[in-house]
Amino acid sequence: MPKVSDDRLAARRREILDGARRCFAEYGYDGATVSRIEKATGLSRGAIFHHYKDKEALFLALAHEDTERMADVAAEQGLVQVMRNVLANPADFDWLATRLEIARKLRTDDSFRAAWLAHSAELDAATHARLERGRESGRLRDDVPTDVLQSYLDLVLDGLITRLASGQPADDLTAVLDLVEESVRIER
Amino acid sequence: MPKVSDDRLAARRREILDGARRCFAEYGYDGATVSRIEKATGLSRGAIFHHYKDKEALFLALAHEDTERMADVAAEQGLVQVMRNVLANPADFDWLATRLEIARKLRTDDSFRAAWLAHSAELDAATHARLERGRESGRLRDDVPTDVLQSYLDLVLDGLITRLASGQPADDLTAVLDLVEESVRIER
Repeated sequence: MPKVSDDRLAARRREILDGARRCFAEYGYDGATVSRIEKATGLSRGAIFHHYKDKEALFLALAHEDTERMADVAAEQGLVQVMRNVLANPADFDWLATRLEIARKLRTDDSFRAAWLAHSAELDAATHARLERGRESGRLRDDVPTDVLQSYLDLVLDGLITRLASGQPADDLTAVLDLVEESVRIER
Repeated sequence: MPKVSDDRLAARRREILDGARRCFAEYGYDGATVSRIEKATGLSRGAIFHHYKDKEALFLALAHEDTERMADVAAEQGLVQVMRNVLANPADFDWLATRLEIARKLRTDDSFRAAWLAHSAELDAATHARLERGRESGRLRDDVPTDVLQSYLDLVLDGLITRLASGQPADDLTAVLDLVEESVRIER
């Protein structure tokens, strides 16, 4: 393989990730075969797996991109705003369904779960730090441990992803998120 | 086929459902092939599909059993108690993962979604009725529409199923459910 610049490498990785994301979104985790990923990226399996070890690594890289984007929002505006952004982007719902399809794998495949948790640590840290700041500033309730508030918000985010990925009605979810936001505040 | 009594019919259906549930739990929705369902039930495909039109109908019958059980609890003790019961039954988590695997199908297959929604109407009605009673008795908050409270609790239930099916830590979920319960009550 010829020597390529860092820019070219980054551009190639971008092509692979974008194509793979579309492929997972369309066919699901199991349905995104190597042939389909080749077709979606316009690249050969050799070129793809030169950059990412296997399909699992590709999927985790995409999940990591989500996490980074969410962590940026969570750090500045909190996890409820992350949820409002998810709700505002129906084009992503196909991809969200893929995140659900790996639940069994997450639970039964120890190394996959470890890799997933490592990727999501950034979002956890951003959410935790913002909750702590909220408590110190007297904005958030302090009668419940921060870990419980965080676990609560994580649970609601998982629920939101599940609802949207399943195509259930989303009309009243803005009001639901208002209620969630209020339930972690110091008073009604 | 010889004429059989209603009891025999009910017993046969029970055998089919129990075997199919184990099979879905072990292999997932796509992995539960007809051969595997035959093996898990100890019955031929002819016998199985005499009672249930196809795999989809079998899955929906199992989901309907869940819904009926949940609706009974929801009517008497509310949806948060349904969640506490889910949390208390780790043996069911394999089956819960199957419920996530059908998210894409739910969103993209109109007739499947219609059948699923018809099955879940019972749980929705039980939850709604109990929330209304809670408001009338002054136990639940009345500054948020009942539909929003219901949608909130549904979202949390979806999140709980996703968390448990993904094998994420469940240690603090009892405290989280306490917070959820409190957030729909009239005051802290």
